Amino acid sequence: MRQNEELRPFGLEKGVQLHASGSCLIKVGRTHVLCAANLEDRVPGWMKGKGSGWLTAEYGMLPSATHTRSDREAARGKQQGRTVEIQRLIGRSLRQAVDLAALGERTLTVDCDVLNADGGTRCAAITGAWVAVALALRSQGLEAALVRQVAAVSAGIVETGEGRRGLVLDLEYEEDHLAAVDCNLVAARPALGGDLELVELQGTGEGRSFSRSEATGLLDLGLAGCAALMEAQRAALE
Amino acid sequence: MRQNEELRPFGLEKGVQLHASGSCLIKVGRTHVLCAANLEDRVPGWMKGKGSGWLTAEYGMLPSATHTRSDREAARGKQQGRTVEIQRLIGRSLRQAVDLAALGERTLTVDCDVLNADGGTRCAAITGAWVAVALALRSQGLEAALVRQVAAVSAGIVETGEGRRGLVLDLEYEEDHLAAVDCNLVAARPALGGDLELVELQGTGEGRSFSRSEATGLLDLGLAGCAALMEAQRAALE
Amino acid sequence: MRQNEELRPFGLEKGVQLHASGSCLIKVGRTHVLCAANLEDRVPGWMKGKGSGWLTAEYGMLPSATHTRSDREAARGKQQGRTVEIQRLIGRSLRQAVDLAALGERTLTVDCDVLNADGGTRCAAITGAWVAVALALRSQGLEAALVRQVAAVSAGIVETGEGRRGLVLDLEYEEDHLAAVDCNLVAARPALGGDLELVELQGTGEGRSFSRSEATGLLDLGLAGCAALMEAQRAALE
Amino acid sequence: MRQNEELRPFGLEKGVQLHASGSCLIKVGRTHVLCAANLEDRVPGWMKGKGSGWLTAEYGMLPSATHTRSDREAARGKQQGRTVEIQRLIGRSLRQAVDLAALGERTLTVDCDVLNADGGTRCAAITGAWVAVALALRSQGLEAALVRQVAAVSAGIVETGEGRRGLVLDLEYEEDHLAAVDCNLVAARPALGGDLELVELQGTGEGRSFSRSEATGLLDLGLAGCAALMEAQRAALE
Amino acid sequence: MRQNEELRPFGLEKGVQLHASGSCLIKVGRTHVLCAANLEDRVPGWMKGKGSGWLTAEYGMLPSATHTRSDREAARGKQQGRTVEIQRLIGRSLRQAVDLAALGERTLTVDCDVLNADGGTRCAAITGAWVAVALALRSQGLEAALVRQVAAVSAGIVETGEGRRGLVLDLEYEEDHLAAVDCNLVAARPALGGDLELVELQGTGEGRSFSRSEATGLLDLGLAGCAALMEAQRAALE
Amino acid sequence: MRQNEELRPFGLEKGVQLHASGSCLIKVGRTHVLCAANLEDRVPGWMKGKGSGWLTAEYGMLPSATHTRSDREAARGKQQGRTVEIQRLIGRSLRQAVDLAALGERTLTVDCDVLNADGGTRCAAITGAWVAVALALRSQGLEAALVRQVAAVSAGIVETGEGRRGLVLDLEYEEDHLAAVDCNLVAARPALGGDLELVELQGTGEGRSFSRSEATGLLDLGLAGCAALMEAQRAALE
Repeated sequence: MRQNEELRPFGLEKGVQLHASGSCLIKVGRTHVLCAANLEDRVPGWMKGKGSGWLTAEYGMLPSATHTRSDREAARGKQQGRTVEIQRLIGRSLRQAVDLAALGERTLTVDCDVLNADGGTRCAAITGAWVAVALALRSQGLEAALVRQVAAVSAGIVETGEGRRGLVLDLEYEEDHLAAVDCNLVAARPALGGDLELVELQGTGEGRSFSRSEATGLLDLGLAGCAALMEAQRAALE
Repeated sequence: MRQNEELRPFGLEKGVQLHASGSCLIKVGRTHVLCAANLEDRVPGWMKGKGSGWLTAEYGMLPSATHTRSDREAARGKQQGRTVEIQRLIGRSLRQAVDLAALGERTLTVDCDVLNADGGTRCAAITGAWVAVALALRSQGLEAALVRQVAAVSAGIVETGEGRRGLVLDLEYEEDHLAAVDCNLVAARPALGGDLELVELQGTGEGRSFSRSEATGLLDLGLAGCAALMEAQRAALE
Repeated sequence: MRQNEELRPFGLEKGVQLHASGSCLIKVGRTHVLCAANLEDRVPGWMKGKGSGWLTAEYGMLPSATHTRSDREAARGKQQGRTVEIQRLIGRSLRQAVDLAALGERTLTVDCDVLNADGGTRCAAITGAWVAVALALRSQGLEAALVRQVAAVSAGIVETGEGRRGLVLDLEYEEDHLAAVDCNLVAARPALGGDLELVELQGTGEGRSFSRSEATGLLDLGLAGCAALMEAQRAALE
Repeated sequence: MRQNEELRPFGLEKGVQLHASGSCLIKVGRTHVLCAANLEDRVPGWMKGKGSGWLTAEYGMLPSATHTRSDREAARGKQQGRTVEIQRLIGRSLRQAVDLAALGERTLTVDCDVLNADGGTRCAAITGAWVAVALALRSQGLEAALVRQVAAVSAGIVETGEGRRGLVLDLEYEEDHLAAVDCNLVAARPALGGDLELVELQGTGEGRSFSRSEATGLLDLGLAGCAALMEAQRAALE
Repeated sequence: MRQNEELRPFGLEKGVQLHASGSCLIKVGRTHVLCAANLEDRVPGWMKGKGSGWLTAEYGMLPSATHTRSDREAARGKQQGRTVEIQRLIGRSLRQAVDLAALGERTLTVDCDVLNADGGTRCAAITGAWVAVALALRSQGLEAALVRQVAAVSAGIVETGEGRRGLVLDLEYEEDHLAAVDCNLVAARPALGGDLELVELQGTGEGRSFSRSEATGLLDLGLAGCAALMEAQRAALE
Repeated sequence: MRQNEELRPFGLEKGVQLHASGSCLIKVGRTHVLCAANLEDRVPGWMKGKGSGWLTAEYGMLPSATHTRSDREAARGKQQGRTVEIQRLIGRSLRQAVDLAALGERTLTVDCDVLNADGGTRCAAITGAWVAVALALRSQGLEAALVRQVAAVSAGIVETGEGRRGLVLDLEYEEDHLAAVDCNLVAARPALGGDLELVELQGTGEGRSFSRSEATGLLDLGLAGCAALMEAQRAALE
């Protein structure tokens, strides 16, 4: 059985999407997310004429990615609330990685499509998409615009079930389902190295509340997980 | 000038919506939110036959609630991502307040409509809606289903501008706009009294990351703010 | 019991929406409508380059405004036919109040949101919105563009039930439900004073037809009601 | 030049739609509307189990029906406000013609599609659709459910232009465009004969208000026009 | 009984839509389609600045055109997959008829609306719309842009039922329903005369596959049918 | 350079989607499509109570699958006409492979998602999805319901460009773009072996028409290509 503070086995495969400026297939256990980044010569209407760029993210799940097939959002004609919430989180997190002014009036569009879902898809998406963004910027000679490294992981408190118990890192679907408290944590550090800090912290009590000390426990667990993921990101880019 | 740990003047007015089972107009400074709760004899399809109830929340802003008029979502035919994200947060938070099994197969529908927006509308909505929920349950003789008290407040780190600086509680629009770090915190305590804990914690770095100690500082500030709001909620119900 | 030709108690409260150019909360009995007017620096595409302005109106109901909660139109993704019909009526009526050429290429956008509904919401919306429009024009130094005063009221023929019978003015929900004939009447007079005339007359037989003399009876009742409402509008602006 | 109180030449052709229970192509001058009525074995959800029937109407315009091609509503994914308003009027008007209880739990669906538009399409639609409804009821042996005869016409006040001036009946597009006051009037009389009365009266000032005596003038003109149309309806059914 | 290689009786009536640049009502047996063509001074965004024109087609069915009434697509807010597929076919087929460069930056918009459906509506639409396009171009002095003549017909293999059996031309609804193989064929020849060739060939096995020789048999049947239709098109234009 | 009658290198990888009943990643040159099949315990409304099953297909492209990023259909809220047309073709083709009565009242839902697009995505989707369907049926012990083998390929006539010329098999994007005639061909043979026949044939002239003999030439080329693909399908299943 996995240790409480242990990540699932993970890997990063570059270049899976042939036409994207940068792409990366991230596998975290049985969670597989295809991430792509493209630089487009336009900015949203409200940013025109400011000389600065933008980064936006979209997230989707293939219908067969889940345990029972889920509806195709394009066919329903509407993205679910959960989808909208996740893609806003991915966009906010990755905007912390890029010096938008250095892009000029261009938009980095990030696509994260889940091929297989087994818990932690939003965190895997952020971690994989950061690699796709780095590759896209490099392909355009814009490495200097990459000012921070960003990665994400989940942590939670599990009190029932057959598996890990207590404060655990990187929840898979079964654990996530059982968790009394669930936390997604996005961390960043300067591109040239430096201390790891938080850029997003989203903790939710599912059925009970949690104390100040539980909150800091989850936070410490998550920061350690992000540090390990960042090493793998660095290795993938070399 | 307001102190860093000081809430804006606030008030709770009951019964403003004549037909709702419970309603409350909350005013936090210049942020005014009309909250209503209604008990309906239905549950979502996926809950049918389980004998348990549900709580769902919807959030909206009147077009003239903002500094410049915003589009009416009903006319655009689509709720914005921000709206969807906020109503999911309100729903999750208030489900912590209610023993859903005690409702039977009924749905508590919470509506939060912003009449005037000056920062902190989602937190005001949660705080006011808890009062509307309590009134609705009381009107149906279901007080026993109200198992926790829930309130919410924002906190943030402001480093520029003419006003408050540093870690500040309950940001108004102008401060929110300037904040380098922004945090929404929802707290709960047992209905019969007890310690205040967290049910939601959402911190975001806007332009910079934040350290573990800044995170705990915001958390402490927010818990203190929620304690004061909970006293006002209690008073309003008596 | 109210007399057949008697209006419900009513009042007009200015300035409830802090950011609107003009706003007015109108209460007619238990029907409460929040009206706002904003002047925006744009005109619809088909009006560009003509040097003239436009006035458009939107109408909505808070879900808890009705006896049983109604669906939120923004969540359903579509405005109901009734909503569309009402906002077209409000817009047409108020365009009779304003000299659009005097606005230049600007749009007066009127929002009418029903907080509590007890019959006559469209008429209350027109009467209250006229005050909001007057305040918005005044705040921009455009009083001269206000060329007519506009107010609206309902009248109908009730033949059953415990309450008023015959031709009655200003129907509340219960009466409206029972009415065999239902009429909404919008009246106008020159801003500087003069005779009251009609700008909209919408009569509908609900279950029976109505004669020419019944039609003129309703019309006379409505004109008298509008005259009283116009006095209150004038008083509110002073 | 046509007299002020003169209708355009008109005709009613039955059976143009081969599969409809009843159909009628009405031509009023250059305004041509194809009307069909079908009886379906269902009622809207809110009517189920009441043993009574319903009548609903839909209205559309072929894109090439207008002077310049208009957008196809099915392609835009949305019916215009004008369309919604018109189909509500047609439905309300024709429900006065039918004893809904006599239908049992069935719905009469009326379709009015404008092939050519030259003013007065909503009135032509009502007049033609009444014939389609009568044919549909007859084809099902339900003549007894047809309790009233219904027809509609427009009238208005024209003060400029080269053509007719003053109070005029049955406006064509050019006159409608110029009209200072525009009125649509739907009249009914018992199926077995009797006096003509009103079921809908919709008068609108376009640029000016209108007096009580102008209103009654338009009303008298419209009632006379409807009487002539009703004779033609009767003849078409024999 | 009709011979296997025999078309239904058909006719082409010009000018039914009074405001269209060109219009044609085509009747093929009990299938009746109203076709119109209009030349508009705009091209799609992706064609701007290329100096060339475009042709686009839209297709619809009146709700009462079918054996049992079908939903109105404008009311459902969505065109069906079948509709989209058909209007793409009509557009592709007619673009073969027109020298788009000769139009300049203008769009020919073709509307095909089915009044009565009894099989073969898409083929009748193409055949009738070609006449409407020819009339529209002639009305603008653009005859030279009409470079090819285009017509369409169906053919199929019927193996059951009371009627025609084997390879049959121009299927009516009942035959189409029974057909084991169904083929739509669009043919073209140069405007100034010349050999008939194919521009679209769409064959589908419905319940069984079909051999190479069956495919060529259907193709020969269809080409012969198109030749006859083209003579009628020519006659209609003279 | 590839021969005119030569397929691109291709491969079929099973089991890529962990939760699907059957899945297959098909790679045809640089065109990569992820196909999945799931058996669900429901049928569309119009099939209920008939004791028979259904097969439906959905098709999508990841935004980064194309040379320049394309819009996400879920975000636009609408599937494009091209998407709708393709998923209808996939569904019709695969329904020829399955004995729907043998499924009972269950639906096989096929998802085809393009990861990389370089021409021929709809044909690759059909060929790969047949493998996914076979795996899904096998996993449920329903091999007997698989009555035919189905595969698809494109062929076309290329007359310009640097590459292959004349009648060519299996067009890549660049060739497809240049092709004067473009044909998609779906072939089937009995599951237990037998002759290859057609189930779908869709030929389109792009800028010119094509003769009867060109049509049969494309048809022969396509049938030969399908035979080769079917061998690979068989091998993948063993």
